[in-house]
Amino acid sequence: MSIKKQWIETIEAMQNDICSALEQCDGKATFEENSWQRPDGGGGKTRIIANGAVFEKGGVNTSVVFGTVTDTMRKELNINGDKWFACGLSLVLHPSNPFVPTVHCNYRMFELYDQNDQMISSWFGGGTDLTPYYLFDEDAILFHQIYKNSCDRFDPSFYSKFKTECDDYFVNEHRNNERRGIGGIFYDHQKPDSIRSAEFWLNFSKSCGYGLIEAYIPIVERRKNIPFLESHKHWQEIRRGRYVEFNLLHDRGTIFGLKTKGRTESILMSLPPTVRFEYNHHPVAGSEEDRLLQTCLKPREWV
Amino acid sequence: MSIKKQWIETIEAMQNDICSALEQCDGKATFEENSWQRPDGGGGKTRIIANGAVFEKGGVNTSVVFGTVTDTMRKELNINGDKWFACGLSLVLHPSNPFVPTVHCNYRMFELYDQNDQMISSWFGGGTDLTPYYLFDEDAILFHQIYKNSCDRFDPSFYSKFKTECDDYFVNEHRNNERRGIGGIFYDHQKPDSIRSAEFWLNFSKSCGYGLIEAYIPIVERRKNIPFLESHKHWQEIRRGRYVEFNLLHDRGTIFGLKTKGRTESILMSLPPTVRFEYNHHPVAGSEEDRLLQTCLKPREWV
Repeated sequence: MSIKKQWIETIEAMQNDICSALEQCDGKATFEENSWQRPDGGGGKTRIIANGAVFEKGGVNTSVVFGTVTDTMRKELNINGDKWFACGLSLVLHPSNPFVPTVHCNYRMFELYDQNDQMISSWFGGGTDLTPYYLFDEDAILFHQIYKNSCDRFDPSFYSKFKTECDDYFVNEHRNNERRGIGGIFYDHQKPDSIRSAEFWLNFSKSCGYGLIEAYIPIVERRKNIPFLESHKHWQEIRRGRYVEFNLLHDRGTIFGLKTKGRTESILMSLPPTVRFEYNHHPVAGSEEDRLLQTCLKPREWV
Repeated sequence: MSIKKQWIETIEAMQNDICSALEQCDGKATFEENSWQRPDGGGGKTRIIANGAVFEKGGVNTSVVFGTVTDTMRKELNINGDKWFACGLSLVLHPSNPFVPTVHCNYRMFELYDQNDQMISSWFGGGTDLTPYYLFDEDAILFHQIYKNSCDRFDPSFYSKFKTECDDYFVNEHRNNERRGIGGIFYDHQKPDSIRSAEFWLNFSKSCGYGLIEAYIPIVERRKNIPFLESHKHWQEIRRGRYVEFNLLHDRGTIFGLKTKGRTESILMSLPPTVRFEYNHHPVAGSEEDRLLQTCLKPREWV
């Protein structure tokens, strides 16, 4: 079976397994699916959860899309070749309780072909990152430990490299290089070579993708019933504003999706449900809100 | 007096006059000023109003900034030359009552110099546009009529040209070319020539800038006391989401500001105070909400 086909089967199974685990964790809401076709080639399955007991808004999406390389893609996305294929799973969960963190992951493969349909390049990319509103050190440690374990099973050099890449990617440069959250792992443009085959990257991506169940759900269970005040919700909505800023100003995935005329509703499902933008908002020095912010400004080693 | 100097005096007086008119209209909140310096040259005065009787959040800002043309500016903003100067007023008002529209305007001049400080190019740009959440035809007509009058005093060809430019600029391409609102006027890169001097463009920009008082405040007065339901506020917050999408994904002013390391808080004061992003939200066909949306999808001639 081609790598493409194996990867499609993997992400579809992963979508099912992750949605089941999340529904069980929520206990109230279930995912609703919209299948969509992309006019220029391919399509996807968008699964949305909303107004749950735990998850205020979330999506677990797969897409398998392809097309001709356009001038816009050449110019703005630095993609060469004649035809392209992309396929991946992406997930964002925005819980309503501000003590439960937001999580995001995306695992994808990409192939490029010449005019005779010969593959000229292919790569895998992916990552999972956590965005808490209040910082529980033991949650951050658990989260990072799971991805370190996943990485170590494949290569002992991966975790430290991909952890740094994650810290360097989810950056609001216009906010004094504030990170979106406390990171996780991120890797991109991993091309198969004589040392690491396409199968290797597929298995690595699968292992990290499934990591969500082990790394995130236990954190949700620990925090989902903590009572919270309006002031906690307010801070969550301020931080969600920074999430919006990152996704619309900087995120390559969002920009790639919109430039290649992907389905807007599926791409922008990543945006949080309710958000606040206040002028010049600063948390009180020394507060829990400030401790989170300082950690976003200066990434830490968690494991 | 140089054009630069005259324009700086103009926008500073306009900032005072507009803020006074808005404070009188609000009746409760007043503007607070933050002066700021840009490390690489220049600075500005940010005046913010928040939690007023009418205005939930708003800003009326002036800035006078200059610097060396960087590689980023050359590459991403298509700016050539060695040094640049920019100076303008920008304003955004987000009322709390969903029957009162949001308004935005920006009037600016730009100069470019060679390495010997000789001016090699200069231009004026600007515009004012209205973003209602509920459409009152008579408000749209009044608004457009005022700017048509301003335009006609300078050149009878301007209104129709600048009205079209406005409709073509405030477009969420990723949302089926939905406009941000019902438009107004917009012009850019207006370089002085033998027919229209720099003074001409300065006076035109001043006249349009002051238009806000005549074009917007009467609309606010008509609508500010209409009682509203939670469902109206909900729709306002959904539409504010589109405002955020436009400003962060497409607006050249926002992107120019952030790329040239302007003051982030002053640039992003344009973002609405509370916002909702819902998956696949569509108003009921034939509702007032839908009538507004259809008008954003297909700009109308109002005068």
